[in-house]
Amino acid sequence: MAFSKDNLKGFVLALLSSFFIGSSFIIKKKGLRRAAAASGVRAGVGGFTYLLEPLWWVGMAIMIVGEVANFVAYAFAPAVLVTPLGALSIIVSAVLAHFILHEKLPQLGILGCVMCIAGSIIIVIHAPQESPITSVQEIWSLATQPAFLLYVASVIVLVFILIFHFAPRCGNTNALVFIGICSLMGSLSVMSVKALGTSLKLTFEGKNQLLYPDTWFFMLVVAICVIMQMNYLNKALDTFNTAVVSPIYYVMFTSLTILASVIMFKDWDGQTAASIISEICGFVVVLSGTILLHTTKDFERSPSFRGVQHFVTLNLF
Amino acid sequence: MAFSKDNLKGFVLALLSSFFIGSSFIIKKKGLRRAAAASGVRAGVGGFTYLLEPLWWVGMAIMIVGEVANFVAYAFAPAVLVTPLGALSIIVSAVLAHFILHEKLPQLGILGCVMCIAGSIIIVIHAPQESPITSVQEIWSLATQPAFLLYVASVIVLVFILIFHFAPRCGNTNALVFIGICSLMGSLSVMSVKALGTSLKLTFEGKNQLLYPDTWFFMLVVAICVIMQMNYLNKALDTFNTAVVSPIYYVMFTSLTILASVIMFKDWDGQTAASIISEICGFVVVLSGTILLHTTKDFERSPSFRGVQHFVTLNLF
Repeated sequence: MAFSKDNLKGFVLALLSSFFIGSSFIIKKKGLRRAAAASGVRAGVGGFTYLLEPLWWVGMAIMIVGEVANFVAYAFAPAVLVTPLGALSIIVSAVLAHFILHEKLPQLGILGCVMCIAGSIIIVIHAPQESPITSVQEIWSLATQPAFLLYVASVIVLVFILIFHFAPRCGNTNALVFIGICSLMGSLSVMSVKALGTSLKLTFEGKNQLLYPDTWFFMLVVAICVIMQMNYLNKALDTFNTAVVSPIYYVMFTSLTILASVIMFKDWDGQTAASIISEICGFVVVLSGTILLHTTKDFERSPSFRGVQHFVTLNLF
Repeated sequence: MAFSKDNLKGFVLALLSSFFIGSSFIIKKKGLRRAAAASGVRAGVGGFTYLLEPLWWVGMAIMIVGEVANFVAYAFAPAVLVTPLGALSIIVSAVLAHFILHEKLPQLGILGCVMCIAGSIIIVIHAPQESPITSVQEIWSLATQPAFLLYVASVIVLVFILIFHFAPRCGNTNALVFIGICSLMGSLSVMSVKALGTSLKLTFEGKNQLLYPDTWFFMLVVAICVIMQMNYLNKALDTFNTAVVSPIYYVMFTSLTILASVIMFKDWDGQTAASIISEICGFVVVLSGTILLHTTKDFERSPSFRGVQHFVTLNLF
């Protein structure tokens, strides 16, 4: 098992991140319930009393900690490893909802959890090792290789077509339009987050990368991509049911991110066919588990908690 | 990917076997339907007109071909590879039921199929290679090593306890009693089938093994184990619903067979921890897929086809 120290760090950070993000849902939901009980007005019907509820803010803070852990995980381990592990946050919230909110987890939901765990183990075992990066210029040269520039160009063209051609015509009837836009942008978000994270990691290690314009450029790209991604994820969640959006988003976003990572960081170059196939199967398994969990247990389907959806979207990658 | 020629042969045979066994269910069911339509009496309510229906006998013949292919597969590839692939027969019958019998396959059923396939690929990729066996005496020495004798002794003791203590008390209320007996015996069936199959394979290759008493002893063991296994599987299916029996039987039987094979053939000795963990995860995935398929689609739950269950039990390993 070729599991490098950096992969291990990234793996632990991704696990912590899933744990924080998963539990933040539950804490926020408890906060919402308490606020609803106190005021008699629910978030979904226009109440904003939950903003006065400290528990809700605790949940929010924990979610931000989780997102930061996720961000840092990308600096250490390949996206092929970190991104699919995001599915574990669903397990954490399903299990905590069972014990803390006393929501019954149906038997098929348990099966979904088991599958997500089994799939994640397979992905972790077969994760590739990235060659250590020593400067932001190195990332820059990876990002400007012809194959990756072609990927970026295709993403931008597709996003333009989706925004200007499809969104006005069928954006409100076909969930794939908005989810497509935010998944395509999401794959660029993760790549730029990884570039920025690696630069910051090097800076903290004493090799200041803030002197180079490349670092600031990556920061700009992160900002643009994340804002677009959040904007269109919110639109998707406003228009369609979370139970529809979440699994599709997970599939498209994770697949595109893995594709981008494989092109940019050449993750699969040193790997055997067996490892690559195992990884893909692991991903399919996690994906099936996610779909199963979402079809059996629709956490946020109840209209009473629709107000919380805009904040759910912070769980971007 | 260390995939030997023998493993490939065993794999192809196991696939063919699953295909034959899976399609035999559908053909027999079509035969039963035709017989019921012709006579107005259904098999479940006592009719035996299906014995006059040629289609039913075609199904029966195809099932026997499938069982033979399965038997031969064990002569080439390790049980750790062949046994879990048995789950693929469920996929074949689910898909054929959809197209031929026009039974709708629910979406979760499709998910179950995807999982069984993904899990099987992982198992196949990480399957161990067995050291080639050149004579029946070699198998005899593997079967008489202390660790395996201990396993056999424990199985016999457990089976006796289950038959004489638990079966009279709670055999009709607890499905685990009958299924436990036939799974325990099943693990010995597969090991003796593997021993006999290997001896016959060597015989066909020109190295006559029928001269040795060991071969005849294995034949006796196969007969005893298979008869006991069929007997108690029939009892389980008579007493409980197929939808309850099948997944439990698949889990217990496959787990015990893998355990027996790992002890007797030391399948895991030359393998890395990563391969072993991947295999176990793949097994868990196939298992989850099987459960999902059985909970969403209960092929033989309908009482009108109960009569066929006694023949279903031919699908032993």
